[in-house]
Amino acid sequence: MKSVVIIGFGNVGQAFTKAIAGTDNFEVVQIFCRNGKLKTSSFPCPVTFDMKELLPADLYLICVSDDAIGEVSNDLPFRNRLVVHCSGSIPMTALSAAQRRGVFYPLQSFSPDKAVEWSEVPFCLEAEKEDDIELLTALARELSDRVYSLSSEQRKRLHLAAVLVNNFVNHLYYLGESYCREHDIPFDILHPLISETALKIQNIPPYEAQTGPARRNDQKTLNSQLLQLKGSSLEEIYKTLTTSIIATYEREKL
Amino acid sequence: MKSVVIIGFGNVGQAFTKAIAGTDNFEVVQIFCRNGKLKTSSFPCPVTFDMKELLPADLYLICVSDDAIGEVSNDLPFRNRLVVHCSGSIPMTALSAAQRRGVFYPLQSFSPDKAVEWSEVPFCLEAEKEDDIELLTALARELSDRVYSLSSEQRKRLHLAAVLVNNFVNHLYYLGESYCREHDIPFDILHPLISETALKIQNIPPYEAQTGPARRNDQKTLNSQLLQLKGSSLEEIYKTLTTSIIATYEREKL
Repeated sequence: MKSVVIIGFGNVGQAFTKAIAGTDNFEVVQIFCRNGKLKTSSFPCPVTFDMKELLPADLYLICVSDDAIGEVSNDLPFRNRLVVHCSGSIPMTALSAAQRRGVFYPLQSFSPDKAVEWSEVPFCLEAEKEDDIELLTALARELSDRVYSLSSEQRKRLHLAAVLVNNFVNHLYYLGESYCREHDIPFDILHPLISETALKIQNIPPYEAQTGPARRNDQKTLNSQLLQLKGSSLEEIYKTLTTSIIATYEREKL
Repeated sequence: MKSVVIIGFGNVGQAFTKAIAGTDNFEVVQIFCRNGKLKTSSFPCPVTFDMKELLPADLYLICVSDDAIGEVSNDLPFRNRLVVHCSGSIPMTALSAAQRRGVFYPLQSFSPDKAVEWSEVPFCLEAEKEDDIELLTALARELSDRVYSLSSEQRKRLHLAAVLVNNFVNHLYYLGESYCREHDIPFDILHPLISETALKIQNIPPYEAQTGPARRNDQKTLNSQLLQLKGSSLEEIYKTLTTSIIATYEREKL
């Protein structure tokens, strides 16, 4: 049995504690929590509020906010143990060089009121030592079917790609919904199309899945839609994305 | 039993013929097809290649390409019957004024190799006469649980909203995938996040579902990501959408 200490007991720390309890080969032996006001009895495992009392363990999983990762790892009262953080946007080298460093990043948003479907969560792993990557892989495989090994540089790039396909996409949903509301159209008419678009690209490359007036370079429809948007805050977004789609498929003619 | 004549036998006409055959109260009594080269035996119902032979019917469903709708409706050799088209972007008034006009628009992409899940397809209906709306509603309800009554103006607006949440969203998937490919990251890491984002807004308004650096106005991350994109074709899209997200949530502070 491999032992894990969870450092930080917010949404991520709590979700990991629960998940690791369900594995065959790993156990949480201790939780470290900075908030000394909480009652010891409210934790599912032995808890400490004092770093000096940290137990020896095979893995220390730092689950604090991005800004605190460096400081917390510098405060650890030991050397040369496997210490990993769980952040998508922080490089492995933000951790104290006194430890064997690594990253155990689940690409997933955690919320306290929603149970995590671990088996579908992609894990991005990184470590300095080969043995440590093996231990992280073993843990990730007990939780999920989707385990990837990525460098800090790749993880940073992945984070940007996620901004495109998640944050920007959600904003387009918001703009579509606002536009429907403005014209008294129930937005749920578009729900099936939204699901279909998201599922389609899991089977067909998005390059081939593209449809619409910009894809066809249908100037009549494009001009008529631009006229509908004249002077609104949507106008620039419409122009920018339309130009990008046209340019994407212009290239194929060359 | 209400009788339907299908005019045009492309993807849409074929899909409707099949679907109507499965209803309790409607039947396809005839198909009109312009392509006289096809064999009569290849049609599932009586077929004609000559408009003068069109049978009397309760409903004529025009399933030809957008550009041909006006011409085909003008060629019909009768007056004052219920004639509808199935297009999202063409106004009802494109149909000949000699008929009782209407629209029967399924918001769905049709492809010959994929069976349509009709029960989930939203139908947008329009007609000049109250009785005709009732007949169209009865037919749509036999096919789908999602039936809406929209004016031509609203349908045109809906079409633009669909460009935002389908065409533009798909292009962002393409850009995310290209960016991953460039940096040797398997795009399928992002598949679960893409599905989650699309499903989330069917329960939570997209305004509330928004996350990411632009939502938090996290200038450090925004600048670092812009630096990654410097000089690439993604730069302007990143700037435009980030500015729009920041402006959206700035408003709430006022």
